[in-house]
Order: sequence, then C-alpha cells, then structure tokens
Amino acid sequence: MNEDKVSSVLKNMEKGGIDQLLVSDPMSIFYLSGYYTQPYERFFALYLSTDGRAVLFANRLFPDASGFCPDVRVFDDTDDPVPLVAEVCDAAKPLGVDKTLAARWLVPLQQKKAASSFVLGSFAVDDARSVKTPQEQELMRQASRTNDKAMEWLAAQVHDGVTEEEIAGGLLDVYKSLGAQDHSFTPIVSFGANAADPHHSPDGTVLKRGDVVLFDVGCRQDAYCSDMTRSFFFGEPSEHQRAVYECVRRANEAAEAIVRPGVTFAEIDRTARKIIEDAGWGPYFNHRLGHQIGLEDHEPGDVSSTHDEPVKPGQCFSIEPGIYLPGDVGVRIEDLVIVTEDGCEVLNSYPKELTVLG
Amino acid sequence: MNEDKVSSVLKNMEKGGIDQLLVSDPMSIFYLSGYYTQPYERFFALYLSTDGRAVLFANRLFPDASGFCPDVRVFDDTDDPVPLVAEVCDAAKPLGVDKTLAARWLVPLQQKKAASSFVLGSFAVDDARSVKTPQEQELMRQASRTNDKAMEWLAAQVHDGVTEEEIAGGLLDVYKSLGAQDHSFTPIVSFGANAADPHHSPDGTVLKRGDVVLFDVGCRQDAYCSDMTRSFFFGEPSEHQRAVYECVRRANEAAEAIVRPGVTFAEIDRTARKIIEDAGWGPYFNHRLGHQIGLEDHEPGDVSSTHDEPVKPGQCFSIEPGIYLPGDVGVRIEDLVIVTEDGCEVLNSYPKELTVLG
Repeated sequence: MNEDKVSSVLKNMEKGGIDQLLVSDPMSIFYLSGYYTQPYERFFALYLSTDGRAVLFANRLFPDASGFCPDVRVFDDTDDPVPLVAEVCDAAKPLGVDKTLAARWLVPLQQKKAASSFVLGSFAVDDARSVKTPQEQELMRQASRTNDKAMEWLAAQVHDGVTEEEIAGGLLDVYKSLGAQDHSFTPIVSFGANAADPHHSPDGTVLKRGDVVLFDVGCRQDAYCSDMTRSFFFGEPSEHQRAVYECVRRANEAAEAIVRPGVTFAEIDRTARKIIEDAGWGPYFNHRLGHQIGLEDHEPGDVSSTHDEPVKPGQCFSIEPGIYLPGDVGVRIEDLVIVTEDGCEVLNSYPKELTVLG
Repeated sequence: MNEDKVSSVLKNMEKGGIDQLLVSDPMSIFYLSGYYTQPYERFFALYLSTDGRAVLFANRLFPDASGFCPDVRVFDDTDDPVPLVAEVCDAAKPLGVDKTLAARWLVPLQQKKAASSFVLGSFAVDDARSVKTPQEQELMRQASRTNDKAMEWLAAQVHDGVTEEEIAGGLLDVYKSLGAQDHSFTPIVSFGANAADPHHSPDGTVLKRGDVVLFDVGCRQDAYCSDMTRSFFFGEPSEHQRAVYECVRRANEAAEAIVRPGVTFAEIDRTARKIIEDAGWGPYFNHRLGHQIGLEDHEPGDVSSTHDEPVKPGQCFSIEPGIYLPGDVGVRIEDLVIVTEDGCEVLNSYPKELTVLG
C-alpha cells in the first residue's frame, strides 16, 4: 500500500463523513496498492476503513496479490464473494462505494445488509487521484513528451491518397518505439468533413487537397496517459477555414493563460467558449472544454460550465476547444496542463501555429 | 427494436416477477435494438416495461439513435440523466437493473426513489441472449470457421526462434483478411512452461524444441465471437507430455459427447473433470470447463460444477479442459458447441490429434 495516497483518501473520507469505503475501480486499487489486474466480470475490491484496516479481495485466478496489501482475502470462481465482504464491513455504518461498482455486487451487498446504507464514496479516491504527486507529474510529462514526438510522425504521414486507417494503424508501433506501452484511447484520425464529428473513428476515407487533418491521440506510458489534438490543413486553407482555425487557437491559448489556483473549472471553460461564441460559432462547440487525466484518459471533474470548483496545484487536465461545422470543417486544438503554484505548465510543446502540409 | 428478442425478454421478466427493467449493458442494448455505442462513463440505458413501453436514453454525443427505438430521450453532458429515468419509471413498483449498471447511476436512482425497490434483473436479458436464434447461430458458425482458418495460419508460424509476441502480433491482420473485424479477446500465445499459466500474456519468450505451443484465440465477426484453443508440440513430446495431452483430449471429447438438451452444465463439467481427476491431475485443472459465448466472449451461465441448469437447444458455449503443471507443461483444448435438439454441433473443425510441428 502507498501510505501517503491511502492517507489522502482516509482524510477525504473523514471530510465526507464516510467511515468505510469499498473501492472497485482497478485503476484506483492500483493507485493505492501498486497491484493491478483487470478483473472483467469477477469481483475485485479494496476495503478501507478510517479505523486503519485495508483488505484486498482477489480471485485466485488473478496474479498473486500478497505483498501489496497486509490483508488479502483470496476466493475461487465457485465462491460467492459477497459474504466475504459483508464479514469485513461494519453493518451498523454506511458504506461508501465507488461509482464503478457494478449492480451485480452492489445489489447483493444491499440485500445482505452489509452496511446500514450505501452511498457514493468515489470522491474520496477521485479527489486524491486528481492532485498528482511530484512523481506522478513527472510521469505525465514523460507521456506527453512521447505524444509530442508521435505528433511529428503523424504529420509526416500526411500525403495524397493516404487513408485515416493507414495512419492510425501505424501509431501503436511508433508509441512503442518511443517507450510507451499502449494507446491511452482509440486514436482519432479525421480528414475533411469527418473532422466535424468530434468522435469520428478512423476509416477508409482517402485524403484529398483542401482537407483538414485532425489527430486526437494519446499513449499510456508507465501507467500514465497523454492526450493531445492538432489540426492541420492539407493544401492551402480557405479564408473561412483559416478563420475557424485561428478562433479555436485563440480559445485554447486564452483558456491556458488564465489557469492558476483559485480560478474555477467553469471559468476556464467560459473563457474559451466566449471567444468561440463571440465569433458566432458558439453552437458548434458542443462539448465540455476538457477533462482531468492521469491513470485514465478521462478522470472525474471535468472542465465544464457546471464545475464550479477552483483548480488546485497538481491537477492535470485537457484544454480542447473545437468548432465543428457539419459537412464542412472541424478543428480542435488540445493540450494537457498541470496547475502550478501561480499558473500552469503546458505539457505539450508541439506547435499550434496554422500549418499547411503537402 | 427486434420484436422477437424484446418479447423473449418481456416473457422472462414476467416469469421473474419484474414489471420494469433498466438495461445498461451496451451489448444487450445492441441485441434488443440494433443500436450500438460504447458510452464509457456516460449514461446509456434502455428501459423496458411489461406494459409495452421501450425508452432509450442516449447522450447527444452518441451516434444518432432515432429509428432504433420508438422513444429516444436525448440529453447533454451537462444534464443529469437520473431525473429523466425516474420520470419514465413506475416509482410504485420494483425496478430490475442489469448487473453492469454502475453504482454512479444506481445509487442516485435509489436516492431519488425512482422505484419501490431495486433488484437484479439481468436474467431476463441473459436468458434470452443465451438461446441463439437461427440467424445468430449462423453468425457463430461463421466466426468459428474464420477461427479455424486462423489456427492454420498460427500453426504455420511455429518455427525455431520465433517469439510469442511476434505470432500474436500478426493475428489481427489475418482475422481481417478472413473477414473478421477484431479479436474477441486478447490472444493467448504460450510457449513451454508459460502454457501452465492459463492466462499468460504473449511476451518475448523465444520458442525452443520440446516446448508446448498453446494458442487460445478468437475473433469478432459481424458482432459475434469465436474462441478456440489448440496445443501443439514443437519437436517430439516426452511420454509425460503425450500423456497430459491425450488426457485433455479425452476430457474434451467426452464432454462434447454428452451434450444434449436436459443434461446439466454441471454434468458436462463433471464428465471432463472426472477423466482428469482419474488420471491424477485433478488439482491441475483449476478453472471451470467453459463459458457461454455470443455477442461477448464470456456470457453468463458458465459450464461449471455449480451450474445445475439443463442446457437448451440454441445455447452456445465453450468446452475447454486443461492441465497446468507449473514450471513443466500446460495443455488446453477448446471448442465451441451449439446445443441441438438431440446433441450438439461442434463449431470448430480444426483437428485435435496430437500434432508435432517443426
């Protein structure tokens, strides 16, 4: 167990009035214990109590967990883990559960009355994970440096007749050659009007002159994620395309410029959104400005109009404004930032000036 | 909506005493409506009521769902979907939820008292999905035919000095060239003692003479999954290796031979297990005999000692006995079968005779 991280979580539990917490998110269990496994449909959870107990529940088919937690309860595929958990819980007190706990376990725990009530306790782990330790910050920088280099490779693949799939298909090997282990999410490679769909999947679309070329990609390196978007033009852009691009770039840069402790997530979103609204494209920026990131590509606490909390030093999130004009053009520019004591550090150094390729 | 499949689910709900059901598993929603999306942390569910209502809840960022369900309720990232669901539910009646519904939605629905109680209702969809329609059976056959051909390719890659990763890394392209779209799970390629770990991940292990070569692979083709294991020898096996192999093969064939409507899943498991136990290797067959399969590689209702229900025509599952002697040798032989009116159809035709490669 990582004592500092567990202690942050216990502090958050006390603040939130929860004495016991059942953590089921494998990444949160990894964060707290260093032990990782993907349990699929099998039960896997870490119980934490403010009385100091930590109990890890693991199926015998998982990699050996002993050594990661002082108290590991191992069970077989033919065992029901619900009574094992109920035995450890204090039935007289509420139990916090994290948001990923599946109904297949939560409903039986409720029926067994393992606790006096069941409440969402994700905040206790999420708030701890949100503020990166210096070591985690260094891993975030490393993953984004790899992503910057991968973007150079991506830009170099842009040529007449290439398809989205061809470029996307080569990226994993590039990441691996740069020291990363995997994508942090399925890469988005969008040409032309496809870029106007923020969640387009790379397909057989062939690049042609006049197209926007949008890359939204990220890697996972030593467990931590990167995530960056750049939009290029293949051939000289029209005045209209140029105006869309420059508007998105101004929105990105203005939002990054105001990040500092005390400014709220909503204010950061507002800053970017206002620039796009003032240019008349407000309805075409139809998603939140960004998301937190760390062990997962999307972590809780988004950069959006409804998130009124101030940002804190050590938090890491994306700033990714976009304008999506259906059937016409789509542009998004995304960096990751870490909040510092007096501003923020932008983790991506790949240039944002309008770039014409080919 | 697929009226036949919805009607099976409604019948199961009535049998189970549930008047309303909230389905959150994206594959179950695809099964019932033909609409597929991967929602990640966003809310996505299909509400079904025995009064005939069907309501699909979808985020505006998902692909357009209109046309898939007569009543689609669209919401934005900044909307809370919980009140939308509560509005549709009958608060005076219990609500069935499926096992994948995350606590992030279940706990707020409970706090909002959207229903009089919350029970697990997965069985209603799972039991319907378990019995494949003739059209689904044909898709299962197609995916397994592709897997048989892929096994030929795999066997042809076995040569001195090759690594597990090298073979595993080439498989996706082979699947695609054969008409499949993806792996149905991360392929297992294990050499020598690695084969004694049933969940080994392909790594840089180099093949050497005397090794077992185990391939446990499957593809997803037109949404349906295949899954097969074959174990080969690279160079002449020892008498001991030969004995282990033949024991697993007898267990596989004996289990397949007794499958017919009315025989229980536990009896099928027992038949294979007894052969391995009688040979003295009982403790080294440390997993269930098999799992059901269809839209997902692992579907509910496993082939194990604790599953006492009789099998039904149209059900499809794996039969995959194995013997894993740590540090020594591991062998598993797996086919998929579909239960017929008077026996079963084995979907894999790749030979099971002991085969020496190289």
